[in-house]
Amino acid sequence: MSVVDRLRDALGDAVRTDDAALDAVRSDTWVRSIVAELAGRAAPQPAAVVEPASTAEAAVVARLCREAGVPVIPVGGGSGVVGGVLARPDAVMLSTAALTGIVEVHEEDLLAVVRAGTNGWELEQELQARGLTTGHWPQSIRLSTVGGWVATRASGQFSTAYGSVEDLVLALEAVLPDGRVLRTRRTPRAASGPDLRHLLLGSEGTLGLVTEVTFSLRPLPERRLAQAFSFASFRAGLEAIRRSMAVGHRPPVVRLYDGVEADRHFGAYAPDGHAFLVLVHEGPRGVVEAEVALVADLCRAAGGRTADAAAAEGWLAHRSEPPSARPFLERGVAVDTLEVAATWSVVGDLYDDLLAAVGALPGVVSVSAHSSHSYRSGTNLYLTFAAAPDDGDLAAAYDACWAESMRVTVRHGAGISHHHGIGRVRRPWLAAELGDTGVALLRALKRALDPDDLWNPGVLLPPS
Amino acid sequence: MSVVDRLRDALGDAVRTDDAALDAVRSDTWVRSIVAELAGRAAPQPAAVVEPASTAEAAVVARLCREAGVPVIPVGGGSGVVGGVLARPDAVMLSTAALTGIVEVHEEDLLAVVRAGTNGWELEQELQARGLTTGHWPQSIRLSTVGGWVATRASGQFSTAYGSVEDLVLALEAVLPDGRVLRTRRTPRAASGPDLRHLLLGSEGTLGLVTEVTFSLRPLPERRLAQAFSFASFRAGLEAIRRSMAVGHRPPVVRLYDGVEADRHFGAYAPDGHAFLVLVHEGPRGVVEAEVALVADLCRAAGGRTADAAAAEGWLAHRSEPPSARPFLERGVAVDTLEVAATWSVVGDLYDDLLAAVGALPGVVSVSAHSSHSYRSGTNLYLTFAAAPDDGDLAAAYDACWAESMRVTVRHGAGISHHHGIGRVRRPWLAAELGDTGVALLRALKRALDPDDLWNPGVLLPPS
Repeated sequence: MSVVDRLRDALGDAVRTDDAALDAVRSDTWVRSIVAELAGRAAPQPAAVVEPASTAEAAVVARLCREAGVPVIPVGGGSGVVGGVLARPDAVMLSTAALTGIVEVHEEDLLAVVRAGTNGWELEQELQARGLTTGHWPQSIRLSTVGGWVATRASGQFSTAYGSVEDLVLALEAVLPDGRVLRTRRTPRAASGPDLRHLLLGSEGTLGLVTEVTFSLRPLPERRLAQAFSFASFRAGLEAIRRSMAVGHRPPVVRLYDGVEADRHFGAYAPDGHAFLVLVHEGPRGVVEAEVALVADLCRAAGGRTADAAAAEGWLAHRSEPPSARPFLERGVAVDTLEVAATWSVVGDLYDDLLAAVGALPGVVSVSAHSSHSYRSGTNLYLTFAAAPDDGDLAAAYDACWAESMRVTVRHGAGISHHHGIGRVRRPWLAAELGDTGVALLRALKRALDPDDLWNPGVLLPPS
Repeated sequence: MSVVDRLRDALGDAVRTDDAALDAVRSDTWVRSIVAELAGRAAPQPAAVVEPASTAEAAVVARLCREAGVPVIPVGGGSGVVGGVLARPDAVMLSTAALTGIVEVHEEDLLAVVRAGTNGWELEQELQARGLTTGHWPQSIRLSTVGGWVATRASGQFSTAYGSVEDLVLALEAVLPDGRVLRTRRTPRAASGPDLRHLLLGSEGTLGLVTEVTFSLRPLPERRLAQAFSFASFRAGLEAIRRSMAVGHRPPVVRLYDGVEADRHFGAYAPDGHAFLVLVHEGPRGVVEAEVALVADLCRAAGGRTADAAAAEGWLAHRSEPPSARPFLERGVAVDTLEVAATWSVVGDLYDDLLAAVGALPGVVSVSAHSSHSYRSGTNLYLTFAAAPDDGDLAAAYDACWAESMRVTVRHGAGISHHHGIGRVRRPWLAAELGDTGVALLRALKRALDPDDLWNPGVLLPPS
């Protein structure tokens, strides 16, 4: 009896093998997968898609697949951009599509217990109708799921004040590769051994399936104020952010665009080629008003010129529309974004060198960056590149841009991934990021939980 | 050749077997260890104390002990209170006493790289002389080491604004049980697989030795303001804190004492038996002033009466003086503190039930609590008990108070340890905290890193 038959015996209609179901989960939105698809080499159909409706059903899938030695590939919203989901003919795709809905909202404790397949946008609509928010707002919010946020260690656009997903998750439930169910305790903080939530956060489907997430919520802020500044250089803008972070200001949104991106997105608001900083402040009225004034002083002291706050309002209105690479790829242009992170003393040089190195590659027609998540000790850089290779080889041009970006980032001692994860695209550089001991440690964890390497093989961990 | 001889061959004078050295590391300050010592049953001397002067030397200790199958017990400042350090005759105590000093302070990046044995107080003196701080200020700061903070998942008195140790550590270095050295990357945030820092944070010496810690610093705040309020009940004070946390205020210090403790510590400032709230606010001038006024409004709305801020100043002046149980124990009174954590909807009942249950135990003469670390979703409770058993059996009285506290905490679904760790004293309740799957997962990690169970055996993990 095949594993698919056994799954169907146990779970009935939760097991799907129709073309529509199989085709829908063949890959996430990694540019390399789209390139392959456009070239007629799309990922194969998997053996089956299973959509458990409960944690217990998900545990059955884990157990049966382990018994049969069959690969399991967890699938959420499919909005990943690093190749974390790619079907293979022998694999079972373990989808959270039927594992949806809010289990509980607790207003006094500011908690929401949410099943992992719940769409981010739908969750926020329900919470905001009650005056609450998770504080997590990725650009992919209309596509992504809360389980995906945990599995990839996502950051949202409001992270500078509210933190990334690891700061927002109070507890979680997960099915481990052997079918056991982990439930961490509903407590605001613990010193009870290593924090087990962190085994699943960033595990990218390799160590189990997140089935339920308990968020520590916030009430919607009493006050939101936006402001914007232009700077003669990207470095001057970075310095304004650094000084603001150092003294403890925490506007949820702190986005600094370089001259190229400022011209593209905020052309009407800033002198040509100037960097552009968008700030959104939130919180209790008096506190926010004080913060706005103090941050404005710091921006001006760093050379910033006050710009029309309408620029920030415009950004707010369109912040949930992820760009699609497909139209560019169809026209023979390889485009992508990638995010890295660095300390303040590194980030300026890293910016210069990334732009110079990627810009010098054959066929590259555009490269630019912005910073969108800041910390006391540094910030991220979000690079956007476009290459129109003469020979039409989009995959090669794309790979070259990524490889050069990763090489430059590693050379500077910076972090190769701020919030999109490793997936397949960054896998060759994981050892440079974690060191050989870090990779060995991750591999030891993997062996301890998934000794047969069945869960999302080919993702995250480099081949041994 | 014994392991001690082999260690001495490799490390010379770093290996100590003199009585003074052996006696100094026999235990931490766990009350049970003091009780045993007073009864003439102090912990035995270990086989040796090794004080490596470098990470490489610490790695040699790990390798030689693994080869010899000899237990390794990491030792920091010895200020632990849960029995995390207890010598045995066959063990090598791996001390960080010679692994001290600040390696680097980077003012632009707000980073300090510190060797694990560095004393917390000395670190803060050096940093504050440069206008910087870690933001971590445990009551034990004059005794404890930065490595100990990481190993126990410590929280400091300023955690409500600045977070606990896991929020302050940007990177760390550790020697694993097989002698490999893990160094995490110097980057402000990463999505590069599960966060490996969290394997060491809270590992209590069972998964390796933290050798170096990189802190993300803060400049000393521009402004510090203190205020205080009294409340007719502990619950009214909790409600004031809950409302303040909910809307996003973050005074670093938020300490609410129940009537018993308020009379003890702040008798001059509050009506008899009233709960007492001490608040310290820090940050940029205008922001702090706004926060102070808004939090005061929330406190008064919850029934708080403004008290003399001098009470808070008095607390600040004496905040680094950990109480000693020894004088009480010598007089036949078993005393201790223990901290648990709970969500807001649970903490009021938990407080009542803890006080009632412990208070009803034979010989208990005093039980009281305060809250000292708050979050959007809950807070901690810091219980203090004293028992004067008729039969003079301090250990039995002490164990009964702990057992009852843990049982009540577990029954409420609350967290059994807020920030002192598990050690030996909480070990019987770890399965109630993490669940059987959580313990199995922790055990799988342990087997993966320390298959022979040589590192700090008897601590954290319950016997299998």
